[in-house]
Amino acid sequence: MTESLQRLKAILAEVSDLRRAANVLSWDQQVNMPPGGAEARSDQLSTLTRLAHERFTSPEVGELLNHLADLSDQQPLSDDGCLIKVMSHRYHKQTRIPSDWVAAFARTTSLAQQAWVKAKAENKFSFFQSHLEAVLLLIQEYVGFFAPYEHPYDSLLDNFEPSLTTAEVKAVFDALRPKQVALIQAIAQKPTPPDHFLYQPFEDAKQWEFSVKVLTDIGYRWSSGCMHRSEHPFTIEFGHGDVRITTHINPNAFAPGFFAALHEGGHALYEQGIPHSLYRTLLDEGASMAVHESQSRLWENFVGRSLAFWEHYYPDLQHTFAPALDSVRLEDFYKAINKVEPSLIRTEADEATYNLHIMLRFDLEVGMLEGKYTVKDLPALWREKMAEYLGVQPLTDSQGVLQDIHWSDGLFGYFPTYALGNVIAAQLWKAANVELSDLSLSIRKGEFADLLHWLRKKIHLHGAKLEPKQLLQLAIGEPLNAQPYLEYLQEKYTHLYQL
Amino acid sequence: MTESLQRLKAILAEVSDLRRAANVLSWDQQVNMPPGGAEARSDQLSTLTRLAHERFTSPEVGELLNHLADLSDQQPLSDDGCLIKVMSHRYHKQTRIPSDWVAAFARTTSLAQQAWVKAKAENKFSFFQSHLEAVLLLIQEYVGFFAPYEHPYDSLLDNFEPSLTTAEVKAVFDALRPKQVALIQAIAQKPTPPDHFLYQPFEDAKQWEFSVKVLTDIGYRWSSGCMHRSEHPFTIEFGHGDVRITTHINPNAFAPGFFAALHEGGHALYEQGIPHSLYRTLLDEGASMAVHESQSRLWENFVGRSLAFWEHYYPDLQHTFAPALDSVRLEDFYKAINKVEPSLIRTEADEATYNLHIMLRFDLEVGMLEGKYTVKDLPALWREKMAEYLGVQPLTDSQGVLQDIHWSDGLFGYFPTYALGNVIAAQLWKAANVELSDLSLSIRKGEFADLLHWLRKKIHLHGAKLEPKQLLQLAIGEPLNAQPYLEYLQEKYTHLYQL
Repeated sequence: MTESLQRLKAILAEVSDLRRAANVLSWDQQVNMPPGGAEARSDQLSTLTRLAHERFTSPEVGELLNHLADLSDQQPLSDDGCLIKVMSHRYHKQTRIPSDWVAAFARTTSLAQQAWVKAKAENKFSFFQSHLEAVLLLIQEYVGFFAPYEHPYDSLLDNFEPSLTTAEVKAVFDALRPKQVALIQAIAQKPTPPDHFLYQPFEDAKQWEFSVKVLTDIGYRWSSGCMHRSEHPFTIEFGHGDVRITTHINPNAFAPGFFAALHEGGHALYEQGIPHSLYRTLLDEGASMAVHESQSRLWENFVGRSLAFWEHYYPDLQHTFAPALDSVRLEDFYKAINKVEPSLIRTEADEATYNLHIMLRFDLEVGMLEGKYTVKDLPALWREKMAEYLGVQPLTDSQGVLQDIHWSDGLFGYFPTYALGNVIAAQLWKAANVELSDLSLSIRKGEFADLLHWLRKKIHLHGAKLEPKQLLQLAIGEPLNAQPYLEYLQEKYTHLYQL
Repeated sequence: MTESLQRLKAILAEVSDLRRAANVLSWDQQVNMPPGGAEARSDQLSTLTRLAHERFTSPEVGELLNHLADLSDQQPLSDDGCLIKVMSHRYHKQTRIPSDWVAAFARTTSLAQQAWVKAKAENKFSFFQSHLEAVLLLIQEYVGFFAPYEHPYDSLLDNFEPSLTTAEVKAVFDALRPKQVALIQAIAQKPTPPDHFLYQPFEDAKQWEFSVKVLTDIGYRWSSGCMHRSEHPFTIEFGHGDVRITTHINPNAFAPGFFAALHEGGHALYEQGIPHSLYRTLLDEGASMAVHESQSRLWENFVGRSLAFWEHYYPDLQHTFAPALDSVRLEDFYKAINKVEPSLIRTEADEATYNLHIMLRFDLEVGMLEGKYTVKDLPALWREKMAEYLGVQPLTDSQGVLQDIHWSDGLFGYFPTYALGNVIAAQLWKAANVELSDLSLSIRKGEFADLLHWLRKKIHLHGAKLEPKQLLQLAIGEPLNAQPYLEYLQEKYTHLYQL
């Protein structure tokens, strides 16, 4: 058995190297690559991805996993036991997909992406419709590979949130929806706090330095990472010793660049905290998209948009950008960075409204998989649900159903993880505040070591060994639960808007 | 046959993608990587290199090449004919090396490199001696794989200069040596031109911009490349559409950063000029190390250290760095950047002395392979030959036999290509001046399009299709020849030093 395990680990190490090499290429593509590099880069990435896939899905891996199957029962929580369990799940899932389907999917989504770009630019859903229909057909075919199933959406969700079911997500969203809708309706009755002072010149270099300082304070290790610029901020890892973030600075606004850096910093702290013992096993990554998002949201919002945080940093911020914020009181700054305003675009949404954007997309995806909705219905459904959830309606499809790239890319099952990230962040935040009794006091002093240590121990140390559910159970002793997020929103906005 | 050719090309494309992906990782390592990334990067690079090697040396490639062997006779100058010829040569060479040897070589050179770093830092050749002996033993074993041979050094040389023989290099060096030695002795009798004005503050950002401007003028396409900083300047390509250079700026000296950028720019123009028809064939690279070096040297020295060049750029340079060079006449600047001074360190050597540093190393390498010298003799031999060739002697081994990393890395046969690059550059320069009658007039106007076009047509367009000898014959109708370089030196320094 030892020999089989070693052989398996050698193959996984190779797959890991190929994937992370692809990550380096992808990072470079978004940060440095000149336009002339596009053709070669696309070929290189597709070769690396194909080789990694071929290696991972080879019959030898299947045989080794079979041979080692007992390990996961014998030592369910050990590194090796978890390895066999997680890899068996991924192996069986990936080998059920015929290579014809993979090729058709790559071809169809590549065309769909081009059509989406054009459709969005010209505000014509009709340009995109037939492409999205073709993508949906393939998604339905994909779902069929995993029949019988409880719900057709389950296998899609599982790609991003291992073992989470559609029913479980529905339950969480059903708990959130009415309360979040009621909250923003209540807020809409109150005066809007002024935030014009967030939109004035903030010198680029000073924004950069301020973000670097805060990232350093929260524990981002610069010896194991670096920050660059890219159009869309992201985090990427080439091993826990090289976890990079990017940001995008708007020299005429303070908030977007800073909170992007803090958000990516949260993702990066997770990756930097994964132990070396999991190196090159494919378990040295986050447990799921939602758990990852819980880390970024926790630092961005629960910490970074809290009053305690700015009690520490605001004088420094005022000094750094003087005289821009000299006449703005801390309380007004805090209100401005937490302003709630139902809007059309998901990526610009605030904490109180964000999840509703997600629920709308989840409803549509699930509805299509259940055969309730067709692609043709989407623009009208979008407007209808925006009115219902957020009280606003897009005038154009570009600002509505065409705003996200995800569907053109075939990413069904991905959207819910954004909202679940907020939910998990709130659960962790609540538990951390119980276990670390002086947490807000520490934050008020700009000290984050205890919180980071707690997250390391509860979440980061486990890498991708456990399913998100198991991880949450182990970390805080409870399942996925919408209540803490609702409580958090209620408390925060009751204070902010004097509801 | 068409099917075999397609299959072969598909495999070569994969090998090409893997190698260029490794190039991206290597570029990143030298430009961006934080220290924590070292372990993972080394694993990733070794996996990519191993996979590329396994794929290229697979029996299937051998069978395809056998099956396609006739192509290279039928169409010796076509892309496909050249492909079969060059790949057959590489295949047979690489498959003669047992994998045990490869593993031993990797292990031994890795240890030797560490020992070399320590030996150089502490100026103790004894720390390095046994390691270099171990490397040499492996090199001798390597040479044995290619018996029978005319000269044991031939197979090493061939790794960098396909089909060039030791006898040919000796002939060129024997022609150069006495004349170059005599030249620097004559120069030593003359007063040394002042060059203190090259060593004063030159603002980093302005040096950068000046280099960018000149690189743009000579034809470097920024849409297919970019410049970054690294400790040691280099050029690297990920396809002809993405050819990157690095430079290293010393804010207290003008020449090193500028000429490094121009040197790398010369390499990059070569890679950017390789035609798309050779993309992903492994022929889309330079013909050899020496041909590559001829391009960098041609732009750095023949163009960049010419009077005509500075007649155009010097007013701009003075203006850019005013008042630093306000009182320095063009003629004095020109003399300063061409100052000849026998020195101990190869990488700092000027045009007149550089080749002698190389000949010394070539003598020692060949002497060791011929069994004439032992590793133990090297420090004394080094001092002896430095005195003979350059009239100077190092006081320490760190400034002598320990100065270069190459031997610790097992790079035997590489050094001669540096000097041959100068020789080929002079041959091309002479031919270009005949064929482009107003070349120096164009340079005086800052116009380089004709020269670049000529190099594209004569050299770049052929990629690695031809052996350097064939390429030279086709380009200028003559074999490797030391005479033009000697004439160039003689003419240039007779004028500069009034010999």
